[in-house]
Amino acid sequence: MRALVITDSDGPSGLSIQEVPDPVPPKGHVLIAVKAVGLNRADLLQSLGLYPAPPGAPRDIPGLEFMGVVEKSGGGIKKGERVMGLVPGGAFAEKLTASPKHLLRVPKTVSDTDAAAIAEAYTTAWDAVWVQAGIKRGQRLLIHAVGSGVGTAAVQLARALGVTSVGTSRTQAKLDQAKPDVAILAGDPPVFAEKSGPIDVCLDLVGGPYFGETVDAMAPRGTIMVVGVTGGPSAEVPLRSVLGKRLRVIGTTLRSRDDRERATITAKFARELLPLFKKGTLKAVVSSVRPMADAVQAFEQMAGNDTFGKTVLTW
Amino acid sequence: MRALVITDSDGPSGLSIQEVPDPVPPKGHVLIAVKAVGLNRADLLQSLGLYPAPPGAPRDIPGLEFMGVVEKSGGGIKKGERVMGLVPGGAFAEKLTASPKHLLRVPKTVSDTDAAAIAEAYTTAWDAVWVQAGIKRGQRLLIHAVGSGVGTAAVQLARALGVTSVGTSRTQAKLDQAKPDVAILAGDPPVFAEKSGPIDVCLDLVGGPYFGETVDAMAPRGTIMVVGVTGGPSAEVPLRSVLGKRLRVIGTTLRSRDDRERATITAKFARELLPLFKKGTLKAVVSSVRPMADAVQAFEQMAGNDTFGKTVLTW
Repeated sequence: MRALVITDSDGPSGLSIQEVPDPVPPKGHVLIAVKAVGLNRADLLQSLGLYPAPPGAPRDIPGLEFMGVVEKSGGGIKKGERVMGLVPGGAFAEKLTASPKHLLRVPKTVSDTDAAAIAEAYTTAWDAVWVQAGIKRGQRLLIHAVGSGVGTAAVQLARALGVTSVGTSRTQAKLDQAKPDVAILAGDPPVFAEKSGPIDVCLDLVGGPYFGETVDAMAPRGTIMVVGVTGGPSAEVPLRSVLGKRLRVIGTTLRSRDDRERATITAKFARELLPLFKKGTLKAVVSSVRPMADAVQAFEQMAGNDTFGKTVLTW
Repeated sequence: MRALVITDSDGPSGLSIQEVPDPVPPKGHVLIAVKAVGLNRADLLQSLGLYPAPPGAPRDIPGLEFMGVVEKSGGGIKKGERVMGLVPGGAFAEKLTASPKHLLRVPKTVSDTDAAAIAEAYTTAWDAVWVQAGIKRGQRLLIHAVGSGVGTAAVQLARALGVTSVGTSRTQAKLDQAKPDVAILAGDPPVFAEKSGPIDVCLDLVGGPYFGETVDAMAPRGTIMVVGVTGGPSAEVPLRSVLGKRLRVIGTTLRSRDDRERATITAKFARELLPLFKKGTLKAVVSSVRPMADAVQAFEQMAGNDTFGKTVLTW
């Protein structure tokens, strides 16, 4: 099969499509012909050598979310079924094996390319804000980098689930496209605490220079979910305010979760969110669909922060 | 009545014993003749103008934990009973009113002065580590400033509840007295992650320069409870590690809790910890008992970090 292979750690330029051996599904697993793959920041970081694959995932093939058609059945999922899912790596390949417990059946109303942009972005946003932070109807959600794949997913989830979204971006055009209930253009230094109102949960994909302002924006007993650190690997944190307001700061990532955790969140997703995709209440925000041959350019565009929503690559 | 009054925000030197009006207990509340008061860092910060009293507490009389005898009964607690408890302020006075829901009956086996050193230190340590962070038997607890009132309480609780205590201090004598299972002398810069082993929960009373090392010491999915910030109001936090290890950082303080939360934690304490004080498994670590006339010196000693365990002041 062909796969997008990391040949060195130079980032996008070190990626190339190569022939590699087909994966062999372990007993009980499914073999999938991949049709479309969603691009994530973690893929870019992996290509730069900054985010090594977790144990069990291919070391040199990135890719966390995909849509495909089952070639070899397993665990109640039949040959020919359209599936989508979240894997710890290896999705940028023509074939992929996965446990049936980590797969979702794609509703008929959802296209192949939309399906490839659902698993990672929506699971990340929903697991962080609703499952872990426990946001409630009527509360306020602050979303940094609101134009990102996870950010746009969070805005949609907030609208569907009765939460007020407050989004920040450094680019007015991204705010206009993402359409959070409250849009804040974050300058340099970023200022938003005055405009955001007291925030119950923050979905933080930036960290770094935003963190102090984020703490200022939080309501007492609020929760900051650290999902990305595009603003830098560390941040100055006003611990006195964290204590005084009794805030929670919770780091989270889906990629390092073990099989059991992945199965649990997939089952919960199937129960609670998949019906909303079927009805069209939720719809993946795909801004660009490109052939796999354009992968290097797509990775470069993400490196330049020049993307809105999700980029999907197809075989 | 007499009370220890904050006359200005100069710290210990601004404190003096003055005549003030007796408090009048609201309906259903108890009037208590205070016999002994435990000194806490929050009292010192309040005297410095750095930690204003929460709403409903006297603005100019510090004091969070006490032992006394009921003068006017209420809610099933009778005149003459020995009680101890946690209040949002005002304990450094001869008389105090409190809701019966915020009071604990002092076991016969516990002395008046020991009783004054229980409520704040043990509730803080236990609520943070066991109730909020949910530490389990066999796990490892890192305690910074292990010689403090809260620190020594945490070591005792860990021993009683099957948890391994790892304590840090900048003073060898405090480590020798506190006797954690693993004692680490923290130098400048503080180094302990290599010696601590992977930590499940950290009770952090220091923050500041310790925080980066603390993150390094944590096991995946560990929890850092921010209970004090004696190391400085903010800290450089390696957010990438917080994300990668899926850590939780939770700020907590008892002082700002509302009446309902205070009642809940008091009831839980009565059920789960009071029997251990009765049996002597837990025993307050009181290093110094002094008359209220020495309050200024006692506050000064705490400001100089020259204390071990708790100082109790008596009328």
